[in-house]
Amino acid sequence: MRTGPHNGSESVADLGEFGLIRRLTDGRPQPAVTLLGPGDDAAVVQAADGRVVASTDVLVEGVHFRLDWSTPEQVGRKAVAVNLADIAAMGAIPTAVLVGIACPAKTAASMIDDLVGGLWQEAAKVRIGVVGGDVVNAEHLVVSVTALGDLEGRPPVTRGGALPGDVLAVCGRLGWAAAGLAVLGRGFRSPVTVVAAQRTPEPPYAAGPQAALAGATAMIDVSDGLLADLGHIATASNVAIDVQSDLVEVPQRLVDVSTALGADARHWVLTGGEDHALAATFPDPRGVPDGWTTIGTVTRGNKVTVDGARYEAPGGWQHWSR
Amino acid sequence: MRTGPHNGSESVADLGEFGLIRRLTDGRPQPAVTLLGPGDDAAVVQAADGRVVASTDVLVEGVHFRLDWSTPEQVGRKAVAVNLADIAAMGAIPTAVLVGIACPAKTAASMIDDLVGGLWQEAAKVRIGVVGGDVVNAEHLVVSVTALGDLEGRPPVTRGGALPGDVLAVCGRLGWAAAGLAVLGRGFRSPVTVVAAQRTPEPPYAAGPQAALAGATAMIDVSDGLLADLGHIATASNVAIDVQSDLVEVPQRLVDVSTALGADARHWVLTGGEDHALAATFPDPRGVPDGWTTIGTVTRGNKVTVDGARYEAPGGWQHWSR
Repeated sequence: MRTGPHNGSESVADLGEFGLIRRLTDGRPQPAVTLLGPGDDAAVVQAADGRVVASTDVLVEGVHFRLDWSTPEQVGRKAVAVNLADIAAMGAIPTAVLVGIACPAKTAASMIDDLVGGLWQEAAKVRIGVVGGDVVNAEHLVVSVTALGDLEGRPPVTRGGALPGDVLAVCGRLGWAAAGLAVLGRGFRSPVTVVAAQRTPEPPYAAGPQAALAGATAMIDVSDGLLADLGHIATASNVAIDVQSDLVEVPQRLVDVSTALGADARHWVLTGGEDHALAATFPDPRGVPDGWTTIGTVTRGNKVTVDGARYEAPGGWQHWSR
Repeated sequence: MRTGPHNGSESVADLGEFGLIRRLTDGRPQPAVTLLGPGDDAAVVQAADGRVVASTDVLVEGVHFRLDWSTPEQVGRKAVAVNLADIAAMGAIPTAVLVGIACPAKTAASMIDDLVGGLWQEAAKVRIGVVGGDVVNAEHLVVSVTALGDLEGRPPVTRGGALPGDVLAVCGRLGWAAAGLAVLGRGFRSPVTVVAAQRTPEPPYAAGPQAALAGATAMIDVSDGLLADLGHIATASNVAIDVQSDLVEVPQRLVDVSTALGADARHWVLTGGEDHALAATFPDPRGVPDGWTTIGTVTRGNKVTVDGARYEAPGGWQHWSR
């Protein structure tokens, strides 16, 4: 409700395309890195070191979120968060996001206000703005976000730089979103912490540049599940990665939830996606930065193991295989 | 069919998310400006002058294109073209595109191949690459493109810099897509040139930086219709713009089509959207570059007129008002 008084029953069709776009951006302060904000054919964003990091993710109603499980605000936060996590995983700081929203014409304008509020909330966490957007008509809600970032002069930390002898460390939550999904899937709405984790990830954005500065050789954000995403590092770096399970923290809260549901909390931690923790490899165990937990080792080979053996349970999340 | 032999009846679900993303990018050469291409958490693109221009547009099946009117390849070309036109309208050269594709799991893999082929075809026109992408499940086809660009050290040409005394000029096609829409809407498939213009715009990409170098004070790409988009310049610059109708070329081909359909070709030229011509204002009539046509003047005030009078027919295109 930022662009003046309006009737609560107003729809997206009532507002019109330009009214909607104004709602996305009017009255929102832009940071200094936004050289030209929304309202023109394109935005202009600072790219201080002569390069820009860029990533796009698309979230679809009924596939990546459910509006009976998440508020529009939570969907907005999640759409930005998953993209900012990609920027962090390169070792970069975010500089801007652009947003495309497709939704039915009958959508309540207040719903779009809430969604947009969520986008801005998550962007504000890292002091960036929504610098551009498009709002179009569609049968279902689709939110597409592109995030831009700045490597601050450093080389990008890719998935391909891990070397035998490195140690593996993680930062951020693992298994929480999977636990939340299990809870919601059984028709429950609590415990609130795990349900909130499913609705909106809390990626450790600052840990990405922190790891890069500490000499991380490879990094990825855990979107598909820890073991699945370590598989991407193993493949890209042509290394083997072994996770030592007694080093992997299984939070008591997840144990409690798994016990109640007859599930396996460790399985959530090893394979659950959508938390957007960061996993990185470092050449020196003593160089692993504060806030990161060392959980494994990198050796010659090309596979991912847990305690030296292939992990038995089914792997990560693939949209198409559901 | 770039990633090896496969069965023609393969669906998107058969390929899986990662198979699809590989199809978007595998075996495609990237230009030098792509410092890190697809396959990691994010791409890294050169931003030579320390800034990046960025724009997002979303195209939805049934709203922005119809798969019974356009081939998937044409849809791919259009999705990139509308974004590259936005970059050109800032006076910038394009450097990269990122693509989000949402489509039903049952979609034929060959259809996505064709769509992706179209994306790359249009990108190749300006020697850039698709540097990142996301492919997700959805009930309808939605294509979201973000284009990045480089101002080469120049200030951006916004909508807000037009001054009384400037002249107005345009470069590129006007009215062709509207004529094509009228033809397709009556169930015809020819004349081919106007139908092709509706399926895939041909924006004059190089004319954007050319106009910037020539001192353009304001610029916009004509997506909603000439008069509607001039309205955006008039509002942003707080000027009046008068189009002199005898200077506006109405191509004979459009006259022929309009006669056959009982329509008004001049109306298509003045109000038809989706051709993505460029309209710009220049301080000096002698400074209007080659390939541009001077069609009007900028004065004090805040309106858009044709031959000094308010244009009578209905204005441009708004998605929500259909």
